[in-house]
Amino acid sequence: MRLLNIPRSRAYSAAADESLAKVDVNSKTGIAVVSMQRLPVNSLNLEMLQALGNTLDSLEKDKCRGMILTSESPTVFSAGLDIMEMYKPKPERVKQFWTTLQSSWLKLYGSSFPTVAAINGHSPAGGCLLALSCEYRVLVGPKNTIGLNETKLGIIAPKWFMDCMRNVIGERQAELALTTGKMFTADEALKVGLVDELATDKADAIARAEQFLAPFAKVPAMARAFTKQGFRKETIDWLKKNQEQDLQTFLNYVNQPQVQQGLELYLQSLKKK
Amino acid sequence: MRLLNIPRSRAYSAAADESLAKVDVNSKTGIAVVSMQRLPVNSLNLEMLQALGNTLDSLEKDKCRGMILTSESPTVFSAGLDIMEMYKPKPERVKQFWTTLQSSWLKLYGSSFPTVAAINGHSPAGGCLLALSCEYRVLVGPKNTIGLNETKLGIIAPKWFMDCMRNVIGERQAELALTTGKMFTADEALKVGLVDELATDKADAIARAEQFLAPFAKVPAMARAFTKQGFRKETIDWLKKNQEQDLQTFLNYVNQPQVQQGLELYLQSLKKK
Amino acid sequence: MRLLNIPRSRAYSAAADESLAKVDVNSKTGIAVVSMQRLPVNSLNLEMLQALGNTLDSLEKDKCRGMILTSESPTVFSAGLDIMEMYKPKPERVKQFWTTLQSSWLKLYGSSFPTVAAINGHSPAGGCLLALSCEYRVLVGPKNTIGLNETKLGIIAPKWFMDCMRNVIGERQAELALTTGKMFTADEALKVGLVDELATDKADAIARAEQFLAPFAKVPAMARAFTKQGFRKETIDWLKKNQEQDLQTFLNYVNQPQVQQGLELYLQSLKKK
Repeated sequence: MRLLNIPRSRAYSAAADESLAKVDVNSKTGIAVVSMQRLPVNSLNLEMLQALGNTLDSLEKDKCRGMILTSESPTVFSAGLDIMEMYKPKPERVKQFWTTLQSSWLKLYGSSFPTVAAINGHSPAGGCLLALSCEYRVLVGPKNTIGLNETKLGIIAPKWFMDCMRNVIGERQAELALTTGKMFTADEALKVGLVDELATDKADAIARAEQFLAPFAKVPAMARAFTKQGFRKETIDWLKKNQEQDLQTFLNYVNQPQVQQGLELYLQSLKKK
Repeated sequence: MRLLNIPRSRAYSAAADESLAKVDVNSKTGIAVVSMQRLPVNSLNLEMLQALGNTLDSLEKDKCRGMILTSESPTVFSAGLDIMEMYKPKPERVKQFWTTLQSSWLKLYGSSFPTVAAINGHSPAGGCLLALSCEYRVLVGPKNTIGLNETKLGIIAPKWFMDCMRNVIGERQAELALTTGKMFTADEALKVGLVDELATDKADAIARAEQFLAPFAKVPAMARAFTKQGFRKETIDWLKKNQEQDLQTFLNYVNQPQVQQGLELYLQSLKKK
Repeated sequence: MRLLNIPRSRAYSAAADESLAKVDVNSKTGIAVVSMQRLPVNSLNLEMLQALGNTLDSLEKDKCRGMILTSESPTVFSAGLDIMEMYKPKPERVKQFWTTLQSSWLKLYGSSFPTVAAINGHSPAGGCLLALSCEYRVLVGPKNTIGLNETKLGIIAPKWFMDCMRNVIGERQAELALTTGKMFTADEALKVGLVDELATDKADAIARAEQFLAPFAKVPAMARAFTKQGFRKETIDWLKKNQEQDLQTFLNYVNQPQVQQGLELYLQSLKKK
């Protein structure tokens, strides 16, 4: 599970939003390509989550016609939550980290504009969550893998992570995937419906994403947005109502001595590589 | 979207129930074939919805053994809600229109007897809702299409329309179908599970519907009815509890000036054809 | 439906737990094979349900690494609830019968260890419920059948039976299966996802079950258990909150004169065979 969380490069921690989430808007179509570029593996620390949240706010304000979420890394879409946010955490920062994850996810999951993940690299855990929260998924095959593999790392995916998987592949397959911590190959992901299409490379993935978004030019935007938000209401409402409890569950988890020991061992093993 | 709503022929508005929903009961099997005949396209106005509701009440009273819902039109199952009920609406009538839609749907969705849609023509929007509310769907292929395409017309399908689609094709495919306003071809509908079988023509569709219903002769009727209503309880209860709010949402929508303008433009475009 | 319920052999009613549910723990893997052996057809009476509940308690206490549920009968996994518990029931015993079914099911459905059903025989009604409550199902084909066929016998499956089927094969297929009282052939069960694999015989089924469980040796047990219980929370919580009402519904049903008459006719027909 080398991909999940790599210590963040300190060089990026003070960087501005734009350096973490590059935004390219096609002035003809109004479609924005948002490229995560917290290299090497787009692990999601506080700043990266803020950058995503701010980007979503801007796109919402600018009446964006559609968003394609992708990665500047040649091998990883996003490695998921940054383990350094959980290791020896400072109380204020770790709290802000989780509430920012919550709020940025709410913006993504309930965005008024259509969203596609052009998954051009591995996409474990939090990376998979980002992909699941879009409305359509194109995965560059055949080597890349995707899944909510938290269980394998001793982590319990929060209820809203579970719901995202349920809403995409159904109850039975979601339970099986999360209890086994399965990382799906491209073919498996396509077969189970975890992704909608496979692509040959990043350019192909973006092209297919654009093809999915193009017909929305003829669909009244407000009716489309309300319909999407109607489908997602129950999942969104759960987190809104349980935001504080969800935070406490995370804080309790991260502050357990055995969790900190596990993280320490994991980080030492990374250094040896 | 020519099929959706065509101005209702005034000739029908005062007609009796029987002229709108023809009922043929097979005295041997106890199975009723209900043929919608508000030609040309069975658009659902107040009288048509009342006729359906009254028919369902009668069948319930007569301990009907099964119902097959079909159309007298050679090309359209039902074009959906009648746009003329929404254009320059009179307050009392439009209110009665929507509450009758609600109550007739509750009778259909929760009927004690088994129901099959023999879909012998196009079936957009409210026509698709009728089909989804039956327990089995046979579609005459290959030309006919079916779907909840409200979004494409700038309309937001109410939550119970969404739930009907969810309950048949699952959360993921339902969100995709309604946000894109997709009309499924016969083959697509079969593949995604939106219909259960394809037929070559109306007679074949009715025969297949009868074949689905036949084994119920050996299933104790009360246990079957309670099992069906158990599965549908949550969807039914939602509307029962939110009937007033659902009505207000519709009235607010229909009374918006831009909605009325849209309807006017649409009706003018129809006249030109 | 000869398989459903056969009068229990009085010889077993006083027997100890071990004679009803044989437990074999592999000391290397920590995996327990639990074999139901209330022959001839493992019909679920009070003692059998207690034996299953006690076995689950013991496995939970012993930090079992996984359970495989199977049958000592060469032809039947379990025939379901024992009809003799419902025929001319004594008030105290029939109440204990149902509450034990509830509590043993809660233990199985929410067990912290992973569970597989190695279904080496027919599995109607309550037998199917046991299989559905495990996390993985291997069915010995091609002759064996499985399904919640209560409706065909005039019985209404309780909501939690419905939910178990829903959670495995989805809303649409579950409604269709239970309203028709369908018994699935092995191939049909595999196709609809009611079972995950087919096996050639019991040994093959056990081997496949072990293969499913093996990778869990590398998955942290607590995270896995909480993830499973998270997925099953809603279904479990419903029964916990409605346990008394669910009991009353059953008692009302079983005490109806026409139900008792139906059982008497059924038992007479069995004696003639």
